[in-house]
Amino acid sequence: MTGNRRRKRSGGRAGAADRRGTAAIEQMPWAPPINLDRPTEPLDEDGIAAIHDGAMRILEEIGIQILNAEAVEIFRASGGCAIDGDKVRMGRDFVMEQIAKAPPEWSVTPRNPARQITMGGRHMNFGNVSSPPSYWDMGLGRKVTGNREMCANLLKLSQYFNCIHFVGGYPVEPQDVHASVRHLDVLFDKMTLTDKVAHAYCLGAERVEDVMEMVRIAGGHSDAEFDSGPKMYTNINSTSPLKHDHPMLDGWMRLARRNQGLVVTPFTLAGAMAPVTMAGAVAQSIAEALIAVVLAQLIRPGAACAIGTFTSNVDMKSGAPAFGTPEYMRATQMTGQMARFYGLPMRASGVCAANVPDGQAMWETSNSLWSAVQAGAHMVYHAAGWLEGGLIASPEKFIMDCEILQQIQRYMDPMLTATGPDEIAIDAVREVGGQGHFFGIQHTQDRYTTAFYQPFLSDWRNYEAWESAGAVWTAARAHQTFHDIIASFEPPPMDEAIREELVDFVARRKAEGGAPTDF
Amino acid sequence: MTGNRRRKRSGGRAGAADRRGTAAIEQMPWAPPINLDRPTEPLDEDGIAAIHDGAMRILEEIGIQILNAEAVEIFRASGGCAIDGDKVRMGRDFVMEQIAKAPPEWSVTPRNPARQITMGGRHMNFGNVSSPPSYWDMGLGRKVTGNREMCANLLKLSQYFNCIHFVGGYPVEPQDVHASVRHLDVLFDKMTLTDKVAHAYCLGAERVEDVMEMVRIAGGHSDAEFDSGPKMYTNINSTSPLKHDHPMLDGWMRLARRNQGLVVTPFTLAGAMAPVTMAGAVAQSIAEALIAVVLAQLIRPGAACAIGTFTSNVDMKSGAPAFGTPEYMRATQMTGQMARFYGLPMRASGVCAANVPDGQAMWETSNSLWSAVQAGAHMVYHAAGWLEGGLIASPEKFIMDCEILQQIQRYMDPMLTATGPDEIAIDAVREVGGQGHFFGIQHTQDRYTTAFYQPFLSDWRNYEAWESAGAVWTAARAHQTFHDIIASFEPPPMDEAIREELVDFVARRKAEGGAPTDF
Repeated sequence: MTGNRRRKRSGGRAGAADRRGTAAIEQMPWAPPINLDRPTEPLDEDGIAAIHDGAMRILEEIGIQILNAEAVEIFRASGGCAIDGDKVRMGRDFVMEQIAKAPPEWSVTPRNPARQITMGGRHMNFGNVSSPPSYWDMGLGRKVTGNREMCANLLKLSQYFNCIHFVGGYPVEPQDVHASVRHLDVLFDKMTLTDKVAHAYCLGAERVEDVMEMVRIAGGHSDAEFDSGPKMYTNINSTSPLKHDHPMLDGWMRLARRNQGLVVTPFTLAGAMAPVTMAGAVAQSIAEALIAVVLAQLIRPGAACAIGTFTSNVDMKSGAPAFGTPEYMRATQMTGQMARFYGLPMRASGVCAANVPDGQAMWETSNSLWSAVQAGAHMVYHAAGWLEGGLIASPEKFIMDCEILQQIQRYMDPMLTATGPDEIAIDAVREVGGQGHFFGIQHTQDRYTTAFYQPFLSDWRNYEAWESAGAVWTAARAHQTFHDIIASFEPPPMDEAIREELVDFVARRKAEGGAPTDF
Repeated sequence: MTGNRRRKRSGGRAGAADRRGTAAIEQMPWAPPINLDRPTEPLDEDGIAAIHDGAMRILEEIGIQILNAEAVEIFRASGGCAIDGDKVRMGRDFVMEQIAKAPPEWSVTPRNPARQITMGGRHMNFGNVSSPPSYWDMGLGRKVTGNREMCANLLKLSQYFNCIHFVGGYPVEPQDVHASVRHLDVLFDKMTLTDKVAHAYCLGAERVEDVMEMVRIAGGHSDAEFDSGPKMYTNINSTSPLKHDHPMLDGWMRLARRNQGLVVTPFTLAGAMAPVTMAGAVAQSIAEALIAVVLAQLIRPGAACAIGTFTSNVDMKSGAPAFGTPEYMRATQMTGQMARFYGLPMRASGVCAANVPDGQAMWETSNSLWSAVQAGAHMVYHAAGWLEGGLIASPEKFIMDCEILQQIQRYMDPMLTATGPDEIAIDAVREVGGQGHFFGIQHTQDRYTTAFYQPFLSDWRNYEAWESAGAVWTAARAHQTFHDIIASFEPPPMDEAIREELVDFVARRKAEGGAPTDF
């Protein structure tokens, strides 16, 4: 069932092999998809109003704990909030007035401006798996603690695949690097191995400031240029139910002040940290998200904000989180409707509960990725590489997910549903008539190289050809592709002076002791 | 990576095991889904008009070969067609006038009336894989020729799973049974092992008449009762491009005369048997389908017809068919729009090109099944068990697909997106506040047994628990489930007199030599 033979295709591939030079695979070009589909909208107007009313009543009547004194003072100073210790409440008029200041669309420009991503409208952007403590690959055949090499390899995959549009958090936690300097090493790797939009964890002031500085250096920006618009972003999670923690809010406010991208994603598992009913879990998630958006707008009217969804359900037998379920899909779609109601860009995720990159992993991940499409999500976190509810990062899963992402990109190509005379092709039908086939005719010859999606991982050979080539299942093929990509990986170009400035910065901050680890 | 340990769950399952008695798994009840979603519609009005115009021009200007003299005479007698030898052309007004007689919704009632299925409206029905010549399971580990036992086992799965609503053709061709009597043996197995809607292949007059007779006997119907409305159905394929063969049309007309269900599904592989452009392939498919619907309406105005889509693309490198691709999804959605334009129920399929039930199999099958949902399809053929472009039937794939089908069924439960006060659950949020969790509160306790989808095959345990239980991948778990189901299978009840009548009928027809095999 396993095998690591390099996959070869017969017929017509020699030329392709020439064209692609040393590239490990033929992949689609960089082109973040434009979502052509009308969103799937399970809620009618009354349903949207009911979830909105629920979220507003949570903010008005129950309140959210804000475990950050500076943030509490900002809410107090606004004059629009009722403060009771660390609990903050606010009326719906105030909420709507503040979030109306948030732009419905904004962009993030990384060190390579060609890799700019846009949040809002019909734009879709996919990012790599972020934050698993553990790693699994088919070579190891077991779950191990993440280290810097694994992290760097996953960063290489994130750069390599054109269907990955931004680089989220650490694709796996490199636990062989001390926590005080981990952010310096990983950001150095991220800045030098990738040229895509990067992310900062909100894990204390020093880390946040260090990451902003490294992104500024990598982009060759002055402070003023850096502050002129988002060059990076953060994502914070509330501590559901109804709490925002100190470091998350601290980082959130730092990025707001410097005009960077702000994504808030409550982790509302229905039945555990939120009501067991999906609409209730979504309403609570919206309330927890919107209060962070209000805070950002109070700091910087017009701050670039997006709300995320991480509403799923638990396995009521074990309490374990479940992902990519029917409930997850519907929660994602409902959150999409609410994001449009509030005029805010939206984040979703590519997720699964499976422990290995098998059939279950693929149906759960397909469910979550397509529900992100159906929700009109603009940013899809963890879109490649996630296993075990986010506890494991896997390169095989990464590569299998990229096959799905490329298919989504292709699915959004307007060519597929074009209906001009050349596509209806009456003359071609007339030419072939009831005899023969369409392979040889000019209409086909003019189009066959681009007419159809060409997968890099799917094996479309018949059983006998597949068997004689080693009978390699998908995950094992992905394992070989992983090694091919890493072996041929070339980092994106970087000005040597900038690279040295990054090296110096990391060395200086390490000498200073990095970040405190007592949080 | 393999393993065949019987999967066990800890905690709370003992009671469930008691409740389910000897059943192999806990599954969802019989309840064909009602499709709540607005269809995904890539075509605007102009696009629909363009495909319609293309289909009509094919029928008006190019014509379809009708390789059945009786059918040609029916077209001639209608006075609305231009006949040139076996080529039949007709104007769009005539086409639209005839298909307007076809009912937009109709039902099929099998021997167990509780298993009635409805074609049209927002009804969805899923059927088993049909017609592969070969079989693969993990016990064998290789592709083998289908036989009667394999066929019977797949019929048992088709009966067992409540998410399978009708039984299509032979789930695998039992090539150990001579072709002259194969239909008698398989239909006997199908009639006795299942009580769901059955299908007849149009492979010659004797086979079609035998199957209708066996369905009539199994239902305990008189001839008049049988003819009073669909008790079964057939599916015919055109011989693309632009041809309908003799036996297919012969069976089609026989079922039309006896008021049974009629589904016509052109097999239009873009770039091979149809234009390389998807809209062109769909237009050709529509033309080939509609002429069969016209024929049925000429024979019996109001005949119960549906049009199917089997439009996909080929791998332009090898010419092999590809399935579950982005192009396939869009073709299915476009065909759904056209079916609604013509007011006809629609058939789609669950398909893949993968050779084994691995990751690729699941993303291709997920793509095809969800596109059927998005297209508003009423009948989804091959929804469980299909591999290698339909050349292989696999019980593991069958069971994995049923996990996806159950999720679609659950996804369509309005409960998931209900937004009444009990679902918004402000009081539950207030009760928990910022402390603790929702597990223990009454709102959760009242709902936790039904709040979330409970999979029978997905393993939601963490990695360590999964590993210590044998580290069994999805396909291997499905293999064990297959054996569990077969071991505990109990056929649906059948009146002994009816069973004897079937036995006698089969014996008599075998003594008469069955069906000729010179077609």
